[in-house]
Amino acid sequence: MSNRLLLSAGLASGAVLAMALPAHAQEVTAESVKTEAAFVFNTLLFLMGGFLVMFMAAGFAMLEAGLVRSKNVSMQCLKNIGLYSIAGIMYWVLGYSLMYSGVDGGFIGSFAAYSWPAAGSANEGSYSVGSDWFFQMVFCATTASIVSGTVAERIKLWPFLIFVAVLTGLIYPIAGSWKWGAGWLDGMGFLDFAGSTLVHSVGGWAALTGAIILGARKGKYGADGKMTPLPGSSIPLATLGTFILWLGWFGFNGGSQLAFGDNINASDVSRIFINTNLAACGGVIVSMLLMQAIYKKVDVTMALNGALAGLVSITAEPLTPDPLMAILIGSVGGVIVVFVVPLLDKLKIDDVVGAIPVHLMAGIWGTLAVPLTNSDGSFLTQIIGVTAYAAFTIVASAIVWFVLKATMGIRASEDVEALGLDKVEVGVEAYPEFA
Amino acid sequence: MSNRLLLSAGLASGAVLAMALPAHAQEVTAESVKTEAAFVFNTLLFLMGGFLVMFMAAGFAMLEAGLVRSKNVSMQCLKNIGLYSIAGIMYWVLGYSLMYSGVDGGFIGSFAAYSWPAAGSANEGSYSVGSDWFFQMVFCATTASIVSGTVAERIKLWPFLIFVAVLTGLIYPIAGSWKWGAGWLDGMGFLDFAGSTLVHSVGGWAALTGAIILGARKGKYGADGKMTPLPGSSIPLATLGTFILWLGWFGFNGGSQLAFGDNINASDVSRIFINTNLAACGGVIVSMLLMQAIYKKVDVTMALNGALAGLVSITAEPLTPDPLMAILIGSVGGVIVVFVVPLLDKLKIDDVVGAIPVHLMAGIWGTLAVPLTNSDGSFLTQIIGVTAYAAFTIVASAIVWFVLKATMGIRASEDVEALGLDKVEVGVEAYPEFA
Amino acid sequence: MSNRLLLSAGLASGAVLAMALPAHAQEVTAESVKTEAAFVFNTLLFLMGGFLVMFMAAGFAMLEAGLVRSKNVSMQCLKNIGLYSIAGIMYWVLGYSLMYSGVDGGFIGSFAAYSWPAAGSANEGSYSVGSDWFFQMVFCATTASIVSGTVAERIKLWPFLIFVAVLTGLIYPIAGSWKWGAGWLDGMGFLDFAGSTLVHSVGGWAALTGAIILGARKGKYGADGKMTPLPGSSIPLATLGTFILWLGWFGFNGGSQLAFGDNINASDVSRIFINTNLAACGGVIVSMLLMQAIYKKVDVTMALNGALAGLVSITAEPLTPDPLMAILIGSVGGVIVVFVVPLLDKLKIDDVVGAIPVHLMAGIWGTLAVPLTNSDGSFLTQIIGVTAYAAFTIVASAIVWFVLKATMGIRASEDVEALGLDKVEVGVEAYPEFA
Repeated sequence: MSNRLLLSAGLASGAVLAMALPAHAQEVTAESVKTEAAFVFNTLLFLMGGFLVMFMAAGFAMLEAGLVRSKNVSMQCLKNIGLYSIAGIMYWVLGYSLMYSGVDGGFIGSFAAYSWPAAGSANEGSYSVGSDWFFQMVFCATTASIVSGTVAERIKLWPFLIFVAVLTGLIYPIAGSWKWGAGWLDGMGFLDFAGSTLVHSVGGWAALTGAIILGARKGKYGADGKMTPLPGSSIPLATLGTFILWLGWFGFNGGSQLAFGDNINASDVSRIFINTNLAACGGVIVSMLLMQAIYKKVDVTMALNGALAGLVSITAEPLTPDPLMAILIGSVGGVIVVFVVPLLDKLKIDDVVGAIPVHLMAGIWGTLAVPLTNSDGSFLTQIIGVTAYAAFTIVASAIVWFVLKATMGIRASEDVEALGLDKVEVGVEAYPEFA
Repeated sequence: MSNRLLLSAGLASGAVLAMALPAHAQEVTAESVKTEAAFVFNTLLFLMGGFLVMFMAAGFAMLEAGLVRSKNVSMQCLKNIGLYSIAGIMYWVLGYSLMYSGVDGGFIGSFAAYSWPAAGSANEGSYSVGSDWFFQMVFCATTASIVSGTVAERIKLWPFLIFVAVLTGLIYPIAGSWKWGAGWLDGMGFLDFAGSTLVHSVGGWAALTGAIILGARKGKYGADGKMTPLPGSSIPLATLGTFILWLGWFGFNGGSQLAFGDNINASDVSRIFINTNLAACGGVIVSMLLMQAIYKKVDVTMALNGALAGLVSITAEPLTPDPLMAILIGSVGGVIVVFVVPLLDKLKIDDVVGAIPVHLMAGIWGTLAVPLTNSDGSFLTQIIGVTAYAAFTIVASAIVWFVLKATMGIRASEDVEALGLDKVEVGVEAYPEFA
Repeated sequence: MSNRLLLSAGLASGAVLAMALPAHAQEVTAESVKTEAAFVFNTLLFLMGGFLVMFMAAGFAMLEAGLVRSKNVSMQCLKNIGLYSIAGIMYWVLGYSLMYSGVDGGFIGSFAAYSWPAAGSANEGSYSVGSDWFFQMVFCATTASIVSGTVAERIKLWPFLIFVAVLTGLIYPIAGSWKWGAGWLDGMGFLDFAGSTLVHSVGGWAALTGAIILGARKGKYGADGKMTPLPGSSIPLATLGTFILWLGWFGFNGGSQLAFGDNINASDVSRIFINTNLAACGGVIVSMLLMQAIYKKVDVTMALNGALAGLVSITAEPLTPDPLMAILIGSVGGVIVVFVVPLLDKLKIDDVVGAIPVHLMAGIWGTLAVPLTNSDGSFLTQIIGVTAYAAFTIVASAIVWFVLKATMGIRASEDVEALGLDKVEVGVEAYPEFA
């Protein structure tokens, strides 16, 4: 704006609006006011949901910074701000168009940078398409964040970031188009409200593939089959990250209602907030009780991952469950965390932050659970969807990981791993005065 | 939603709304549009205020993680995510109904899980009842957060969480019903806009009762009457926690306007934001000046608690004060902190994070100050309210604490306290590579 | 509100609104509903933008706490909560009136505390003036936050806070009035949408002036001309701070649209969100690529500052650029960081956190870049504006710094600097158990 003196410059009630209206503005009717208010409310939902999900990037960064050893903390911070930045640009260059433009029951959209209305103009329709782009972009970035924690402490910086570019520019958008772009799985009736599968399992499969191809950190699994814990450097940062993610999830699930312009949508978003919260509560409490029952100690990282698994579990269907079902769905997420974390260690799959149980396993569970509360869902279709996403993401990710391995290499040398990535690749220690 | 292609799938302006409307939708009139927009605005206030207050759980976690010693930081993180989860479920199972259903001038509501409209439907009235539940739930959780800091570093995990379940399922809702549930104190004209008494003093009394029954940490008060400071492990985390709480307070007080659907409510919420901020500013500056004057050093934890005490002080009436009064009311909070912290040490009451001066004493002050700016208030009624909340919360809390003490015990053994709760009860150290 | 039982107390749809309306309420028409909804939407934009920018205070605190050495972390936390508090009060006492009241093409407004409507009433116009005050106040506080990082680790507490009081009560508001108060630069056609110059360069000039007058930290620049790095104490806190600032920037730039009440303004705010995000992404990626190319290591603090420089760069014009231009404008910010940080070291100007490249240099760049995408801009006028702000802020700041130096002294003694400000001025160490 020219200056910020709207009011005292004499722009009385309505004047700002009037100035902004195009010359051919139509008569103001109750219908037109209703339509315009809905446009603004829907856009607001995308922007507010979007900034909450954007902040999840900070949540992942803190969770991972807290769960890696101090010699790799700077690297983890760098990867997280790097991946969010790459995702933002790739989703503009390619991702959004592949995901949403002209999929029409098929598998893929068009290759083109996406565009939105010029300054001072608005699109037709019931919300600003720019706000929708912003909202979908932060989902894409979340998918990349999921990978980063699993492969921490041994993957090199640049191959990781190149993987992120392919994941956010091609893999996620193509997979996403199948459902949210009105592609073939949407046509079949596959249901995934906010992305238990499209975001969390896709990120989880990419992470799992990477963890297997990379191999475990040195010293994690002994020749004798014994697992050595490599405890994270800061529990409060991991806790902060979890709370930030929990906060962001209100935007993640609530914004996925995609509309906020009337009593019913506003009520549905409220319901989604409640179910999202209750599922996380269930995940926390069940994981705590199980830890106490089994181990006689309550590992706080299990409670944190219990919260996240509860959140992932409810993400496929946060609207239809009643409160008790939301708690139960989230609680199963808590159970998954407690049993899958040691299982991965038995399989010698080194998932540094627990992203595979949280995002992949709970994501599958949440997706399969949809028909329990939503009569439009079918278990068979849900299984088909889960399987299709698994097959595509594993194959596509593996190709990218192997190409990177064969060309530039993906794993830091043993010396670098022992010294820590911070000293060698970043040149900045996270806590130079301690440790 | 089925897919996310609202716009390109041809759902032009208004179509989404139209689809969502029930078959018997009435004619769109200026009145109906106004009513519907107000419904959405009011619901938005609850949801936005609610997620801001939810994030206060992270604020308390960081404040407390920063103010306890490193050997108890994991435990403090665990307690905070645990208590928020328990509060969320208990407030659904019992709390909300006890607080709001059928109190009618009495002392207590009904024992029943609360329910809200099914997916795809909305209640009558001027806001979504689900959004109100969400907003009230996070207030309940805040009450429990207040207790957690005071009793830190020596209380065992499970007795603490059981106390939280009773506090959030019974004590807080019953006490809350007296005013916000239209009970007897509301009938008398007691005023507490956003909870200086209902939330902060109730939490503070529960904390004080716990601190006395538990006793002080080993080594805090010598046999010779000398106090040994046990400094917190991370000032930046405590600072972060304070800023997060300050942010959340805009939701706490602003959302307590309960309406945002017209010029006047929007203006009142703006006024509340300003007063909330100015009161905190006053609390910070006065506590800093007093520290400099008295001790020649400005203890940053006093400035942080000064901010919080300013916020608690303005919470009973953030709307009616003019800016100068808001600053003064908050400044008295700063004074309280500076003088009550050493006073508690003289009384050998070990309040690890300063929650008693901040939440209890400033909460009482804020409640008593209401009639200074709100002519509907009466000093006598405010005193009656403060006293009633004190009596009920002290007695109810003491009963629970004593029952827990007599049955499972509430205090960690001397060995465990010396080693730190993290090693023994959590099994995970907060900073395994340092300290 | 008297109690929180709106709905069950029988206040059905519309009743709350009706109660709040003045006795002379006019007929409800489509026009009146449109006007009222716009009032609420615009006010919401200010309040939501405002709380996001308020949270930037936490972002600066964490960024600075992470980038100073552990012996000065408590002080940095104290300064940040202190400066935000002082800014809040000074902007009420003086700042807002100087900036916005009666400037009318001149240089300065009136000396008077600002006021807004009483509780239960609203102003005429298209938004709540209280919400605007809140929004403008947090901008003022941001300006002060910028100074705090540069002069860290050697400036004494109280002179710094007195400087902040003058900056936020006089310097920033007077300078701001020239453009946003409809003063002489606004009359000339100078453009600065959200404050690349008005906020970031003004803060940056004040910081630069302070850094020069204070001198560098002991040990930073050797007699032999060699620079000794004094690495910050916590990279994850610096990363967290950056993400919080990035989040806050959606409020900073998005809120500066100043209106959200119709399709076009909602679309413009969406566009601003996107451009703000893309510019930061560009800043991160370019700074990372340059670091790799030049130094073969990717210093994470450069990536963080690259994000911030990208954000500052787009702040003068976040609306008119298309996505590619937004990325390019932000990328130049990343270039600036990589080259100006070592340049300042050559000049022996000790800028502890890199605020001068980020806020001052990128702020100048962003301001000069406006005419590249906004045809209303003129390079000559932009240069005049940048120069005028430079001249005024340097002179005004230097006067204040010199007066403070001559009277109470601004620099901690060598002993205090060596021991750390925390021990001597704060009396509380940030990490008493480590280091």
